[in-house]
Formats: sequence, C-alpha cells, structure tokens
Amino acid sequence: MKNWFFEKAIPNLRIEETTKLAIKIKKKIFSGRSKYQKIEIIDTYPLGRILVLDGIIQLSQVDEFIYHEMITHLPLLYYPNPKKVLIIGGGDGGTLRETLKHPIKEVYLVEIDKKVIDISKKYLPFVSKNVFRERRVKIFIGDGLKFIKNYKNFFDVIIIDSTDPIGPSVSLFSKKFYQEVYRALNKNGIMITQSGTLFAQFSQVKKIFNNLKTVFPFVKIHLATIPAYGEGEFSFTVGSKKVNLERINPAVIKNIYKKINLKTKYYSPEIHFSSAILPKYLEEKLK
Amino acid sequence: MKNWFFEKAIPNLRIEETTKLAIKIKKKIFSGRSKYQKIEIIDTYPLGRILVLDGIIQLSQVDEFIYHEMITHLPLLYYPNPKKVLIIGGGDGGTLRETLKHPIKEVYLVEIDKKVIDISKKYLPFVSKNVFRERRVKIFIGDGLKFIKNYKNFFDVIIIDSTDPIGPSVSLFSKKFYQEVYRALNKNGIMITQSGTLFAQFSQVKKIFNNLKTVFPFVKIHLATIPAYGEGEFSFTVGSKKVNLERINPAVIKNIYKKINLKTKYYSPEIHFSSAILPKYLEEKLK
Repeated sequence: MKNWFFEKAIPNLRIEETTKLAIKIKKKIFSGRSKYQKIEIIDTYPLGRILVLDGIIQLSQVDEFIYHEMITHLPLLYYPNPKKVLIIGGGDGGTLRETLKHPIKEVYLVEIDKKVIDISKKYLPFVSKNVFRERRVKIFIGDGLKFIKNYKNFFDVIIIDSTDPIGPSVSLFSKKFYQEVYRALNKNGIMITQSGTLFAQFSQVKKIFNNLKTVFPFVKIHLATIPAYGEGEFSFTVGSKKVNLERINPAVIKNIYKKINLKTKYYSPEIHFSSAILPKYLEEKLK
Repeated sequence: MKNWFFEKAIPNLRIEETTKLAIKIKKKIFSGRSKYQKIEIIDTYPLGRILVLDGIIQLSQVDEFIYHEMITHLPLLYYPNPKKVLIIGGGDGGTLRETLKHPIKEVYLVEIDKKVIDISKKYLPFVSKNVFRERRVKIFIGDGLKFIKNYKNFFDVIIIDSTDPIGPSVSLFSKKFYQEVYRALNKNGIMITQSGTLFAQFSQVKKIFNNLKTVFPFVKIHLATIPAYGEGEFSFTVGSKKVNLERINPAVIKNIYKKINLKTKYYSPEIHFSSAILPKYLEEKLK
C-alpha cells in the first residue's frame, strides 16, 4: 500500500478504529510541526489537495465548499441581517471566504495555530482566496476559550470551525465553553459548531447536542455528506438564544438568499431546510 | 493490513480506483462461487455481516435498512395503492421484506442467481426474515430482461435492486431494458433503480438519469447516505409514466404512511421529500 494515505485512528473517540479510508497520493507537498500539531499538505488523486492535522483530514480541494458553505450560511441565514461574526478556528480561510459573501460589518477570526494560516495561504490559495487581507477581517492568534471571555452581548453569529475534540480543540467542546459562547452572543445570537460524523462519531454528536441543549433554548442538527470525512453524514449543530429554529419561514430564508445574491455551489434555501430532516433512527437515538 | 477487507476496484466504472474503504474483519463466514459470481459473507467489526459479490459490498447488517427502505417505500408511496410489484434482483430478500409491509396483492421477485438467495437465507436471516415463504411472494430464477418481456401493462411498481452494471447486471442498465420496464408497467406505473454513488460513480448516475429520461416522462433522483457504500451520497432514480413526481402533495404521502401503519427506521414522509432536494452543484452537473 505504498503511496496511499491512511487516516489516523483517534482512539479516544473510537473513530476509524475498524474502518479506514485509504486515499491514493499524487505528491506530498508539505509536512511540518507547529507548537500545537503536525501539519501536512498532500496532493491526492480523488480529493485534490488535502490539509491534514495530526493525521486527520481537515479539508479537501474537491469538497471543502460543502463544509464551508454549510457551517457559514446556515447560521448567517438563520440570523436576520448579521453584522458582527466570530469564527473560532478556521485557519484555512474557507469559512472566512463564505462569511465575506454576506453584507456583514466585521468578522473576527481566532486561530490558535498561526502556522495553519500561513501554510493554508501558501499551499491552499483556492480556499482562502486572499480574504485574510479584506478590510472587514480581524485576525487574532490565540486560544478561543480565553478570547471569547472578553466579549459579552457582542457577536450576532459565532462559528466554531475547529478540529475534532482532541489536542488543541478539546476545550472548544466543553459545556463551559458553550456558556461563554452564549454570553458573547447578543440577545438574538446564533452559534454553530461542526459536530462530527454520524457513523463513526455518534457519541460525540450526541454529547455536543446534549451539552448545547443545557445552554441554548433552541438547538438543531443539520446534516451534509462530505466525502473527505469518510462514510456517512457529517453533522453541524446550531444553537440559538431567541430565534426559534423550528419556526423559520422558508420564504424568509429564500428572500435573504436572493436579496444578498449569495453565490453557492452546495447550499441553497431548499438545502437549508432539507438538511435538518433527520432519519427516523437518528431522532430516536438522540432522545 | 491482515484481517482487513478491501473493496475491489471496478476499472470500467472508475470506482474506488483512488480511494479504498478498508474494513476490519471479525470472521470470514462463507466464500464460494456460483455460475455468475463470487459470493462472500464476512463478519466485520464496523458493519456487522456483509454480503460481497465479485468483491463489491452489496449490503451490511448495520445499514441495509437505509437502502431497502428507500428503494421500496419511495416507489410504493409514489404509487397510489399498489397491488402488483416486481423486484428484479434483490436475492438477499431485504426489498421483499419492505415490500410486504404494504397491503399489496402479490410481489414477483426475479433473481438470476439462486445461490444468492440460498446463501442469504442461511447467513443473513436478519435481512429476509423468512419472507420468501410468504403466500403473496412468487420467486423466479432467471434473467430480468428476458423475464420482463413476457409482461405488458401488468405491474404497478417495478424495483430494480441489482448489483452495479458489471457482470450479470449489465443489461439491467440499458435503454432497451428501461423500455421493457415501461411496457411491463401499467399506465400509472412507477419504477425505481439503484443508481450508484455520487462521488465515485457520478458518470453512472448521470447515464442512468439520462437513459431513463428518454423513456419516462417524469424522472427524479433521491439521495441517501449509506456508510457501507463508501463516501458520499448514494442515489436512487425513479421513473414515472403518468404520476407527476414534482407535484405530489406531501399530505397524501403522510396519510398513506399513517393509514398502512408503515414501520420504518430510516424512511419517513419527510425524508421522502427531503431526499429529493439536490445540492446545487449536482443539479448543474445533471443538466
């Protein structure tokens, strides 16, 4: 199996212990270490370039648009006319790129690992598309949990675009962190977090869902299938302080989408709603 | 990589050439050859027992319900009050099991490979659950294309539950075959076929969609994500002679589902509609 990339097992999450996704490598582009993690850029046949942190695929060239559009446009369209957005993580710049398609006033991005930003700019320019330089963008290098403690009733939308809950991201999945997110949001605030895949990481999906329910009155899971993240659906979990996520009028979302002339490849107002229809067995398992 | 099962490449379909799903084996249960294909039953850690034909996974214990519920209930709920159903393929009995949950009069099953039925009954009893013996069931061993030529305006619903278009199933994806399916259906008839995965087999998805459009006035793709079939969404394509698939009232589907008290784990009337909402890029690529 020379020239094949095998995604690493994550023992404490029981991910990939018994299934492995093997991906044929075209060329290894970069491999190095930051203070926090191992960073690799690999060019592959099926997925184009991939960003790998501590052995886990973070994004692929062919399908990063699915992840970045969903994690951005779901909360930004749930919130009526957002102006101030915070992205925690997201050093590759994809979520920033999608956020800047909205008529927001400013977006803060807090990434713990500066090297992820530098490497992404250099080897994955198609992801960030130079948006780091945009005048509405403020970049902070630091710990998301520490950073967010300085803000109260400040952000309209907070996007948690982190790695899986191991290594530098563990704290970003704690109940304590979600309480800080709640405090940092204004009274109508909306947050979203990536919450892992249903098949390999269900216990994580459920834990995040339940943790968020202890903090936010309205919590909703959306699904999208992203080939680079392996088999099964990938999940995003949305928390809302005041907007009742169950009672959004589809026509409202449709109108905003048209009005701001949002250009997307995966997301649409129809996908906004269909992605929240969960299979019956999943609804049972989440109870 | 001892004790790992690697799904075989299918060169003419460009499937899995550059990605491989590796699955950890618990125990090899059965391996043999029929006149048509190699048949294996393997017990695995992540998927439970899997049925493998010519190296390709056909079903897994943990998620076969997703495939079998979707390929059965979509057409049987599109059709108002179906009585006569034909299943082509489906030797494992899963589609038969789901079909018999409906108040149909009779269901014919035509499987080319008797050994698939025998092996499935013996090693995968949780799939067929003894339904082969049900009085409404008629089993035929033979070629689907030859069989269907003997029927005209006869079936309400035809379900093509075949392997991928290699080996014994090639003819079941031809335009000629779809014309025979059209003739064998009554004037309101509905058909469905499995049409492969979006990520690895998109050219096949598109070919089936286009072939069906030359034969049926109404054609619609539905998606479901099935871990055992690898990354990305799996597709089902529905063809209809008269029922306009775009103008079905959700309340009608909901009422039938309740009235016949359908017990499902994946399918629901909500999933019926949400599974037909395609990502924007896919709608473009299908044009």
